[in-house]
Amino acid sequence: MHLLPVVEAAATLAFAASGLIAAARKKLDVVGLCVVATLAAFGGGTLRDVLLDRRPFYWVEHSPWLWVILGLCIAATFLLRKRHLAITERAMQWPDALGLGLFTAVGTQLALAQAMPPIVAVLMGVITAVFGGVLRDIACNEVPKVFSDHQPYAVCAFLGGWVAAAGHQLGWPSEASLAASALVTCVLRVAAMVSGLKLPGWRGQ
Amino acid sequence: MHLLPVVEAAATLAFAASGLIAAARKKLDVVGLCVVATLAAFGGGTLRDVLLDRRPFYWVEHSPWLWVILGLCIAATFLLRKRHLAITERAMQWPDALGLGLFTAVGTQLALAQAMPPIVAVLMGVITAVFGGVLRDIACNEVPKVFSDHQPYAVCAFLGGWVAAAGHQLGWPSEASLAASALVTCVLRVAAMVSGLKLPGWRGQ
Amino acid sequence: MHLLPVVEAAATLAFAASGLIAAARKKLDVVGLCVVATLAAFGGGTLRDVLLDRRPFYWVEHSPWLWVILGLCIAATFLLRKRHLAITERAMQWPDALGLGLFTAVGTQLALAQAMPPIVAVLMGVITAVFGGVLRDIACNEVPKVFSDHQPYAVCAFLGGWVAAAGHQLGWPSEASLAASALVTCVLRVAAMVSGLKLPGWRGQ
Repeated sequence: MHLLPVVEAAATLAFAASGLIAAARKKLDVVGLCVVATLAAFGGGTLRDVLLDRRPFYWVEHSPWLWVILGLCIAATFLLRKRHLAITERAMQWPDALGLGLFTAVGTQLALAQAMPPIVAVLMGVITAVFGGVLRDIACNEVPKVFSDHQPYAVCAFLGGWVAAAGHQLGWPSEASLAASALVTCVLRVAAMVSGLKLPGWRGQ
Repeated sequence: MHLLPVVEAAATLAFAASGLIAAARKKLDVVGLCVVATLAAFGGGTLRDVLLDRRPFYWVEHSPWLWVILGLCIAATFLLRKRHLAITERAMQWPDALGLGLFTAVGTQLALAQAMPPIVAVLMGVITAVFGGVLRDIACNEVPKVFSDHQPYAVCAFLGGWVAAAGHQLGWPSEASLAASALVTCVLRVAAMVSGLKLPGWRGQ
Repeated sequence: MHLLPVVEAAATLAFAASGLIAAARKKLDVVGLCVVATLAAFGGGTLRDVLLDRRPFYWVEHSPWLWVILGLCIAATFLLRKRHLAITERAMQWPDALGLGLFTAVGTQLALAQAMPPIVAVLMGVITAVFGGVLRDIACNEVPKVFSDHQPYAVCAFLGGWVAAAGHQLGWPSEASLAASALVTCVLRVAAMVSGLKLPGWRGQ
């Protein structure tokens, strides 16, 4: 479990970077960069906590993270060049997949701990992992990528969330459920990335 | 009151269908269809409950609905063709008008039960009935239809909500208030649909 | 402190007017005008209160304000002409700067009173003052102006919020902190307006 804080930090940075890149592509100013990066990093978990009526939020308990993201965004306005964006995005895919796994598992477990029905708990896991990106894209005035790019992303979170729900049902220790759910989600995501698998298109042509 | 669950189910399906149609028009993938349909069906009531600090949400208490919408959206990706969209949309106008009435009345009453001032309660009724559509359109990166199409839709909810507020003030039994408010809203909406009445344009040309 | 209600009313009207103008520019109907003006006026404080889990909202405690904004928007559909928009917007800059100061200071203090860490409290001040405009622009399907126009607006709020945080730390009386924070924010904003200072662009070309 010494691994957990490392995974969490890498994943949070990857999520923040996705916001920073999206904001930079829209040529937002430094305020836009900071807000969109923060939304991408913490928006999903915050929405989950508002829905579950949980406090304090992650970024209130770990408020130094706000400074990290602020610093990162200010530095980016000086250092980041347009040609870095695609490279950064590709490099961030890997910690992003870790984050997808970890945040799905954590979100699902938090909802199960509040005695939510399994489908609701899994949905909370998906919201935790995916809605930061949705809020990021809405703030940038784009159709959310996760709704339209036909990549298996939310689907991996949905499937992996059921592992946590099953573990809870079967009485597994909480850490085992968490690890299994995160691992399955992450492996599914990496498999989708490597294989280039696409969701079936909407056939309504 | 045996009618109530039937009206509720028909209205929820009509709201979900409006999300499904909007998502299909934007060519979103199956994830987008599921999320936007769910937002359209439950977004308004959920926003009201977050504002009123009420739990559990309708879709937590009635979680099988989430499976229904999920199944509907997956089926739609296989079965729905582009030429079906306009027909479905027209057919859904009628249960949608029922939903406008029912959800306005329910939302207003829930707020009145929390001793909200009448104008706030009516606003909560309007949010319940109308903001699912607003969130649907924002998620699809469109200007919300209810803000821009000059159709009397939110206005019908606003007027009908006052019937529930008046009934509450006059000490009517709760069921009578609910029925009267829902009926007035629904009749106003149907009258607007049939007559083709439009809201006055904004005159600032 | 007799000044406070006057400043508050002027600022609320200026924020509502910014919503009305944005909605009019997008040619929304009267429903859109009312919703967007209300979001611009109360959206920031409401979002802060949802995050801090505070109730009642300002517009529930002061519900007559909802009638004022409703009346204003209905009147605007009849009276406001396109050529009035730019003039109104320019006239509203001054009460808007007052609002930026006041709402930042109030929001920061409310969060400090809940023992939030300083950076979170300042962020809550910024959300209070700035996110009404963000929600306004999202509802109008625009990239939020505050993220993209390179004007020092959120930055003034961020800096001014620290005055309230410092006052709290140093044990100043609450009114002195509030006044100092509001004043500094407002003066910074006016200085930015008068000097035409711009935030550095994102250099990633």
